[in-house]
Amino acid sequence: MKTHTEIIETALSQINWQQEPYGLYEPIAYTLSSGGKRIRPALVLLGCKLFGGKAEEALPAALAVEVFHNFTLLHDDLMDKADLRRNRPTVHQKWNDNTAILSGDVMQIKAYQLLSQVPEKHLKSVLDLFSTMACEICEGQQYDMDFETREDVSAQEYLEMIRLKTAVLLGTALKIGALIGGADAESQNLLYDFGINIGLAFQLKDDLLDVYGNSDTFGKKIGGDILCNKKTFLLISALQCAEIDIKSELLRWINAKKYNPNEKISAVTNIYNLLKIKELSEDKMDFYYQKALTSLKKIDKNNENWKELHNLATSLMKREI
Amino acid sequence: MKTHTEIIETALSQINWQQEPYGLYEPIAYTLSSGGKRIRPALVLLGCKLFGGKAEEALPAALAVEVFHNFTLLHDDLMDKADLRRNRPTVHQKWNDNTAILSGDVMQIKAYQLLSQVPEKHLKSVLDLFSTMACEICEGQQYDMDFETREDVSAQEYLEMIRLKTAVLLGTALKIGALIGGADAESQNLLYDFGINIGLAFQLKDDLLDVYGNSDTFGKKIGGDILCNKKTFLLISALQCAEIDIKSELLRWINAKKYNPNEKISAVTNIYNLLKIKELSEDKMDFYYQKALTSLKKIDKNNENWKELHNLATSLMKREI
Repeated sequence: MKTHTEIIETALSQINWQQEPYGLYEPIAYTLSSGGKRIRPALVLLGCKLFGGKAEEALPAALAVEVFHNFTLLHDDLMDKADLRRNRPTVHQKWNDNTAILSGDVMQIKAYQLLSQVPEKHLKSVLDLFSTMACEICEGQQYDMDFETREDVSAQEYLEMIRLKTAVLLGTALKIGALIGGADAESQNLLYDFGINIGLAFQLKDDLLDVYGNSDTFGKKIGGDILCNKKTFLLISALQCAEIDIKSELLRWINAKKYNPNEKISAVTNIYNLLKIKELSEDKMDFYYQKALTSLKKIDKNNENWKELHNLATSLMKREI
Repeated sequence: MKTHTEIIETALSQINWQQEPYGLYEPIAYTLSSGGKRIRPALVLLGCKLFGGKAEEALPAALAVEVFHNFTLLHDDLMDKADLRRNRPTVHQKWNDNTAILSGDVMQIKAYQLLSQVPEKHLKSVLDLFSTMACEICEGQQYDMDFETREDVSAQEYLEMIRLKTAVLLGTALKIGALIGGADAESQNLLYDFGINIGLAFQLKDDLLDVYGNSDTFGKKIGGDILCNKKTFLLISALQCAEIDIKSELLRWINAKKYNPNEKISAVTNIYNLLKIKELSEDKMDFYYQKALTSLKKIDKNNENWKELHNLATSLMKREI
């Protein structure tokens, strides 16, 4: 039997992007072929099958979620001026800024074209869930950019930002799947909450890995967030709980214009260690992970898909530190 | 009785954009408040009423069309690095590039949110018409940008570009209105063809006005297309039909790096006059205008809305040269 990821890869590869004007569609094929774990579309299929629905009925929505997700990466990379994504040049680097803008715009439309293929009785509900999520993701990106120039971001604001930017996509993917699969409203919402809380835990884990990860398995350079002073849960918590002298040292590193990168990473990591920020973040992560599991356990479905969701949640949390 | 434009202005002003994050939603309110003739949403309402439908039922689709149209202007201005739109700074000028990208993205989603409010029995058809149009507009913009670096653009390619970039929006606005108003497929298509041909004639008129317009009434500086060597129907036709010596002179002006702007405008206009490009363009424009009227006349509706469509077509063509 094909795995969900295989079903999605096959379906994605069958979309024809070989059409004119090539300058518009080639960057889309390039973006979608760059791999990724296809977790979000898999959640749509799992959400559907969990309630006895057919994967085929949820497949267009799953593809829409994946195309939309990749669109946000494409435009985010442009806004963040990122050079690489999954070890390949980003679209604005390989082509140019205008191509990144316009190809991204078309990806958004293509996501809606895929979405319109869900069974018609669910179309209006699915469309509204999807659009609400899409707006929220843009709001999350806006807050993320706003935070770059703000010094007073609270942990609560940060958590709200990652809820919007990261978690609602997981929650909505599951909810759309559940809806198509025939779940009642309560079960849809439980699955949504599961997705939201897994999303929050997932991002907190990502922040942790950026500091405490193993560079061989993490896939990114360790300390990237520290070097660009990204206001992660770790930095915000450290600034909040540090006594005056440690706080000054941390602020000195944040405001330093010239420094040795490795020295900065090591100094800030030492401060985090001193303040037990790793433990604090892990506690927060575990809080959301447990919340997620509580929601999942309330869904009374003893089938393979339930177990797969449970395993997925656990494996995301167990990624190697 | 309220005019269509008034209905649209009122409905647009009732959408609440005063929400956080303000950096994301303020530029949308700014873009939508900059006026414009609201022709496209009026076409949705007219298309609906022409077949006896209620304007209220078509209003969400009309607003979706207007929000989408303004989104394309916002992103096009960014890609074209335009400083002004309707005599006000463009969004990327007043805020910055990232704001223009992200606020534009949200506008696209908001257009779909409006669209999802059409009567549910029409939702799937309206959605598919809208998305096809949206892709085509992006394709038109891509061709337009591609043409900037190409020397061999034919008149046919130019007409296909303006069909995509300008005309399909008018055609689809009318067709969506007709569909919601209960028109049969044949009438929907006749109205679509009317919109396409009016759109082509409209853009040819715009190109003409850019050279032969009256700067007081046109609202833009005369000769802008000539100064930036824009490959309009006029320039393409001139290059195609000029004998070798006139063609060399024209190419000299196109390739000149240093020149007096007024001198260039006047020299190129003289070449156009010599080659009777104005008459050629007017003939082409009239060809599409007549084609549009032929389609409209096949729609057997003797009501006020038919007359309003007819008048609109005529008035767009009669804009003062």
